[in-house]
Amino acid sequence: MPYRIAVAGATGYAGGEILRLLLGHPHYQSGEMEIGALTGASNAGQPVAELMPQLVELSDRVIEDTTVEVLAGHDVVFLGLPHGHSAAIGAALDEDTLVIDCAADFRLRDAEQWQHYYGSEHAGSWPYGIPEMPGHREALANSRRIAVPGCFPTGGTLAILPAVAGGLVEPDLAITSITGVSGAGKKANVSLLGAETMGSLKAYNTSGKHRHTPEFEQNLAEYTDKDVTISFTPVLAPLPRGILTTATAPLVDGVDQEAATATYRAFYDDEPFVHLLGAGQQPQTQNIVGSNMCHVQVEVDERSGRLLMTSAIDNLTKGTAGAAVQCMNIALGNEETAGLPRVGVTP
Amino acid sequence: MPYRIAVAGATGYAGGEILRLLLGHPHYQSGEMEIGALTGASNAGQPVAELMPQLVELSDRVIEDTTVEVLAGHDVVFLGLPHGHSAAIGAALDEDTLVIDCAADFRLRDAEQWQHYYGSEHAGSWPYGIPEMPGHREALANSRRIAVPGCFPTGGTLAILPAVAGGLVEPDLAITSITGVSGAGKKANVSLLGAETMGSLKAYNTSGKHRHTPEFEQNLAEYTDKDVTISFTPVLAPLPRGILTTATAPLVDGVDQEAATATYRAFYDDEPFVHLLGAGQQPQTQNIVGSNMCHVQVEVDERSGRLLMTSAIDNLTKGTAGAAVQCMNIALGNEETAGLPRVGVTP
Amino acid sequence: MPYRIAVAGATGYAGGEILRLLLGHPHYQSGEMEIGALTGASNAGQPVAELMPQLVELSDRVIEDTTVEVLAGHDVVFLGLPHGHSAAIGAALDEDTLVIDCAADFRLRDAEQWQHYYGSEHAGSWPYGIPEMPGHREALANSRRIAVPGCFPTGGTLAILPAVAGGLVEPDLAITSITGVSGAGKKANVSLLGAETMGSLKAYNTSGKHRHTPEFEQNLAEYTDKDVTISFTPVLAPLPRGILTTATAPLVDGVDQEAATATYRAFYDDEPFVHLLGAGQQPQTQNIVGSNMCHVQVEVDERSGRLLMTSAIDNLTKGTAGAAVQCMNIALGNEETAGLPRVGVTP
Amino acid sequence: MPYRIAVAGATGYAGGEILRLLLGHPHYQSGEMEIGALTGASNAGQPVAELMPQLVELSDRVIEDTTVEVLAGHDVVFLGLPHGHSAAIGAALDEDTLVIDCAADFRLRDAEQWQHYYGSEHAGSWPYGIPEMPGHREALANSRRIAVPGCFPTGGTLAILPAVAGGLVEPDLAITSITGVSGAGKKANVSLLGAETMGSLKAYNTSGKHRHTPEFEQNLAEYTDKDVTISFTPVLAPLPRGILTTATAPLVDGVDQEAATATYRAFYDDEPFVHLLGAGQQPQTQNIVGSNMCHVQVEVDERSGRLLMTSAIDNLTKGTAGAAVQCMNIALGNEETAGLPRVGVTP
Repeated sequence: MPYRIAVAGATGYAGGEILRLLLGHPHYQSGEMEIGALTGASNAGQPVAELMPQLVELSDRVIEDTTVEVLAGHDVVFLGLPHGHSAAIGAALDEDTLVIDCAADFRLRDAEQWQHYYGSEHAGSWPYGIPEMPGHREALANSRRIAVPGCFPTGGTLAILPAVAGGLVEPDLAITSITGVSGAGKKANVSLLGAETMGSLKAYNTSGKHRHTPEFEQNLAEYTDKDVTISFTPVLAPLPRGILTTATAPLVDGVDQEAATATYRAFYDDEPFVHLLGAGQQPQTQNIVGSNMCHVQVEVDERSGRLLMTSAIDNLTKGTAGAAVQCMNIALGNEETAGLPRVGVTP
Repeated sequence: MPYRIAVAGATGYAGGEILRLLLGHPHYQSGEMEIGALTGASNAGQPVAELMPQLVELSDRVIEDTTVEVLAGHDVVFLGLPHGHSAAIGAALDEDTLVIDCAADFRLRDAEQWQHYYGSEHAGSWPYGIPEMPGHREALANSRRIAVPGCFPTGGTLAILPAVAGGLVEPDLAITSITGVSGAGKKANVSLLGAETMGSLKAYNTSGKHRHTPEFEQNLAEYTDKDVTISFTPVLAPLPRGILTTATAPLVDGVDQEAATATYRAFYDDEPFVHLLGAGQQPQTQNIVGSNMCHVQVEVDERSGRLLMTSAIDNLTKGTAGAAVQCMNIALGNEETAGLPRVGVTP
Repeated sequence: MPYRIAVAGATGYAGGEILRLLLGHPHYQSGEMEIGALTGASNAGQPVAELMPQLVELSDRVIEDTTVEVLAGHDVVFLGLPHGHSAAIGAALDEDTLVIDCAADFRLRDAEQWQHYYGSEHAGSWPYGIPEMPGHREALANSRRIAVPGCFPTGGTLAILPAVAGGLVEPDLAITSITGVSGAGKKANVSLLGAETMGSLKAYNTSGKHRHTPEFEQNLAEYTDKDVTISFTPVLAPLPRGILTTATAPLVDGVDQEAATATYRAFYDDEPFVHLLGAGQQPQTQNIVGSNMCHVQVEVDERSGRLLMTSAIDNLTKGTAGAAVQCMNIALGNEETAGLPRVGVTP
Repeated sequence: MPYRIAVAGATGYAGGEILRLLLGHPHYQSGEMEIGALTGASNAGQPVAELMPQLVELSDRVIEDTTVEVLAGHDVVFLGLPHGHSAAIGAALDEDTLVIDCAADFRLRDAEQWQHYYGSEHAGSWPYGIPEMPGHREALANSRRIAVPGCFPTGGTLAILPAVAGGLVEPDLAITSITGVSGAGKKANVSLLGAETMGSLKAYNTSGKHRHTPEFEQNLAEYTDKDVTISFTPVLAPLPRGILTTATAPLVDGVDQEAATATYRAFYDDEPFVHLLGAGQQPQTQNIVGSNMCHVQVEVDERSGRLLMTSAIDNLTKGTAGAAVQCMNIALGNEETAGLPRVGVTP
């Protein structure tokens, strides 16, 4: 009997991307997987054909209300809801149901940080969906509740973690992450209009105000005993998808390019979705757009005594929906790469 | 034994897109298909890892020279060469080899038109790769030589053909097709620089000068006894991929919206890669980007007495490489949709 | 004593562009002109510094309510209000005040067309602000009430009018106009988000539904006795500003390129803001962005027996605010070109 | 008698922008200034009308060869030549001629740094054209030879200098500067094609390899006794114009937001082209595009103990041609702001 999947918040960008990936998943095409309920809030009752014309195979579907009743009875439930809505639903769904939350609700382990950044009560934490972080893949395999990471911490952690874990740098990081506009979601907001974002660049939620800041810290702190400090500057740039992260930190004495490259190779050579580029190449978002890949580079800058760590991901794929499907594959015992493109839609 | 595929001109945009699709093809993933020689001209000898970093699985490959010797011995050869280079190679390759030409060389049946538009001697014509044109799918299934259509005629023909074949309009067409910049290919040219094309729109090769004009005429003339007239205005717009075609023609007396919709439904309801949108919806290129889909709409404009026919395709997928793989599937007896995404990378 | 100018609806795109032009106007810089009240609706009470940080010289201003009291006492009042709000204000302001309306309220002379397209009662018509239309400059010079045209009819009329007035074509026009996203205004709307519009093209308000359709007809009908028919297809493209219009119509027998060029030269050689490009050149929006110019081309397409007429304007400058300032200059007896850039911000 | 200006390298982006500004300069419009020779290399002999259709008023000009003979006899000569070509011409022109060099040739004072980064012999240094750097305006006023700064050092220095000069930070800087594509110039290069740059982000010339690195160091070192260290990461983003600079450095103990803001205010309150934004606002490139403005912000990030310094400039205006005209105004004793827009072409 096929396993059935529901997507709550199906009409947002994360929801739409999850459905794109599921429709291309070999289990869907073989009939082993079925797509069940698609839910929304203000869009409930409207046809998928109008809201998401790209999903031709689901043209006859109608968006249902996001309720526990509608979501119950599925084997897998993806939650693409606004922050703060996942806890109640996660608690009400059967504990055997695989629930994969794309919101922030269960990402942070520290209740105080949660409170500070989100202003509501902390719901707890679930296994955290970056399988490439040592130890995490196993935890994900054994869980029925998974928290999908934020898009910035995904790209940033993959760029920086080997350097911090491998002791290449002091963990005092200056990070600038440049993102495409879909990262802000599908909400009517004058500052996100095409006319405001095309042909323009701006930093936002700077100086520790961005909610992904404590998530960065949590991820890196797992692998070092030193105090982790993050200066995080997100920048909005005129492209639909993609995050380029540039990060630097002071080199530990004696670390040279050879050591840095070797550390990254050891970390990623067996990872299907992280690719260390050749010497002299820098990640370019067009090479990973639409794919679940993270392209990474590491360079010793002798002039400044710092290490430059860069990465490119698609914020909607590896940054959200692709990670969600990757985690589903792991938790269900599927082949981890099933249904996840590894080649970007270049150019 | 797996079938082996070569790609000549692998480092251009068509070549890269063919490889993206092949790497995601179920036959490649199951081992039934192998990717053999990848050739280029000025890039011969350079590693794929540098030229096309998105093709991580082919990182260890090196581009070879485009010669008959290198291409011989494959079951399928895709040609992504500049116009005028395919004839000699096509003639030299074994007649059992499936040769799929993405250039213009074998698209036109009229030697005079070829001469006028391309200035060289006419090499002949091969079965023409729009399977959705009545009668063509059968011809493609039985051929070892296939001409992939131009990107504009693909989008335009799919938008217009039901109206012309179904007698909805007089075949006196005013067409404006707006294309993303990858359609011009990967060649160093000041007028194609990012600085010249971002934030700008311009028409080019107007007033019958564009080489796709006679291809449009040839396609439509197959299905009507009336004289076909095409006014074709291509426009370059600031997006990487995608073609939006808008076409109008005088309505035949008595044709109403119901009749127009019914004609299009009859034409396309069984086609896996052409989708007639619901009433009131217009094609949007973001909904088909990276996929092999063509989204189509038809509207009666009573005020002007004209029919509006519109379509959206990805110029590199359904407009080139996707059509090439679709034709390969047909000619090899594969499932026609194998390896061809049907959901756009939206947004 | 300096003349004082108010801008109602100052925080919209038209209002902002009017202020950009006024701040660069030589009369402002010499002190002959003063900028008085700036009004808004939902933004009233907010500082200009937050709403429009580009207007550094007005940083200490606060947006006031749009009321007759606030607007009274100025010599010139620009109205950049939503359609339907200008009539009451126009009636209440002193008849010696120069009122220049950027909305549609007073553009159409035919009450029935107004009713059909706007659904409210017709307020009447004011002299229509395309000074390049024969006879209009004089009317504008003598009026204290001026209707600024729609952006599409401005670009389209300038492209097409010489051909219709000069008898080069049958006035049965197929027009596709491609616009940047600022044309839709500064309103929160999911379909105008950066993520929905970048990297995408779509037609909208097609088949006679666009409200600019009757304005096109009105403009062209002034200069021909024949029936004017307009098939108008607007397309939204991923750039902030700019409209490229492509229009074709059946050639009148005997019209050749020489005659077409001569007709256009005669029409535009003395116009400061319309420039007929050299043979073989097509208008490109980057060459007019930020300026009040309209670049025009006309080509005989012998293959199809049609005339191709194209133009490029900046929808916010020549298409709205630049036209408004040009009309102000005419009505006040200023030099017509004062404060209006004639060179685009290229690239 | 009017002063006459020549532009060498007129057909590049810097040259075109200089001409746009000169055509809008009040001295040109009043007849006090004349535009003389326009020269190029491969374009010599071609009409301006074809190469730069936006310069309608110069339509009848032809590009001449870049020779001393052609450039001699002008009062002002702008040089927009490739690096390494300015020295010979500068030496040959009359010493009373005001020569303003937009290339790198005379920017660096340290011959060794020049040699390391440019590989040729050092030609010397000229007064450096950032008038906002304390002491520089006076030097520029008294010189007939001026070196226009690089675009990155302009935006970066204006963002960072008050903090370094005012002792707010340790001068150990992590800088990421994101630039539009016109910064790379108008040269045929596959990696700068629209298809390669739209919808994509990539870092380049990282880890001290970018030639602007020593220029940054030189500028900041003028105002501190401490060792200056620069980690500089330039990023190419999909917009035609604009540079957003994000820079962080360790806060000096005791520096708070109030002190930081006060330092920046003191530095810039009298500067016509630098604008410190209000609290909570970040620079956005659309607000300065086409203008000579630099918008700046400074923020204390207490969480990381670093200061965030950001700026936005137009790389072709304040970053090159606007700075050149500003320097010309200073050296000629014109009003410094003459002909230089202070309002961006927003949106």
